[in-house]
Amino acid sequence: MTAHTGASPTITFRENVRPEDEHAVRRMAEATGFFRADEVEVAGELVRERLSKGAASGYEFVLGDAGSELIGYACFGEIACSVGSYDLYWIIVDPAHQGRGLGRQLVDRVEERVRALVGRNVYIETSSLAKYEPTRRFYERCGYAIEAVLRGFYQPGDDKLIYSKHIGTQTPAD
Amino acid sequence: MTAHTGASPTITFRENVRPEDEHAVRRMAEATGFFRADEVEVAGELVRERLSKGAASGYEFVLGDAGSELIGYACFGEIACSVGSYDLYWIIVDPAHQGRGLGRQLVDRVEERVRALVGRNVYIETSSLAKYEPTRRFYERCGYAIEAVLRGFYQPGDDKLIYSKHIGTQTPAD
Repeated sequence: MTAHTGASPTITFRENVRPEDEHAVRRMAEATGFFRADEVEVAGELVRERLSKGAASGYEFVLGDAGSELIGYACFGEIACSVGSYDLYWIIVDPAHQGRGLGRQLVDRVEERVRALVGRNVYIETSSLAKYEPTRRFYERCGYAIEAVLRGFYQPGDDKLIYSKHIGTQTPAD
Repeated sequence: MTAHTGASPTITFRENVRPEDEHAVRRMAEATGFFRADEVEVAGELVRERLSKGAASGYEFVLGDAGSELIGYACFGEIACSVGSYDLYWIIVDPAHQGRGLGRQLVDRVEERVRALVGRNVYIETSSLAKYEPTRRFYERCGYAIEAVLRGFYQPGDDKLIYSKHIGTQTPAD
């Protein structure tokens, strides 16, 4: 993608998914150089699911456009069998638009939506591999902390880290 | 169900799911008095998925019959995006046949299957609520230990506990 120089573009946010978003999501996922082909496939699949099933898909979106171009998005959803626990499944910012706070805006807007749904917890799962260090630091800057480590989950030496933020106004009676 | 007195019935194990298993699974789930209606629905759904999609469903089964009657089963599967991590999704023993070690046999056979698939980890998720105390003690007797606690996951005051057993011959290079 062409790097944007000069003033940052105005970003508008929406929650409704459009058919063209599937291709844009795959494009951005590939552009990060971060995801395997099967992971890129999953990113597109969640968009398809939302398009075909709507809210019943269990996938909610925050999408950020610069004009007509999708430049970042987040996908989240309520976790089945829980009351008010949400997973942030995906968050991608187009590499040409990174470093400008869009990732943080996406997370903030996901949390806004979760609060509005009376949600209590947001979970983000990631890997312990070195390549995810910038990703983990980003979650920590957004106020998430590691709540669980599953050793060797993905592969030997590749742990699952479960980050969480406890949000909303309900406090459990401890 | 009629309580079986006298000698314990001979139990035979199989992995192939039959159409009649769906009803039997629901019946046993209801008979435990442990599951909500929507959870019983999920138990039956996994059987339907296996029947319609086979291995592609991601659901594997160990089923124990006493003659022609299904008296216990376990459902497990490889966790997507992991290499060799398995979830034990469900394990139910008919209340009329509990206390005779069938639950342990089911878990042992799940682990046998996971080992044969070169699996490394088996995870079991459960709740911290008091009613699950016997369930948790059973997992601990089977050699599982709590690897993670997600506070307030299901509801305020109702935590998700992730039990795990690290099995197989591969040891991660720490």
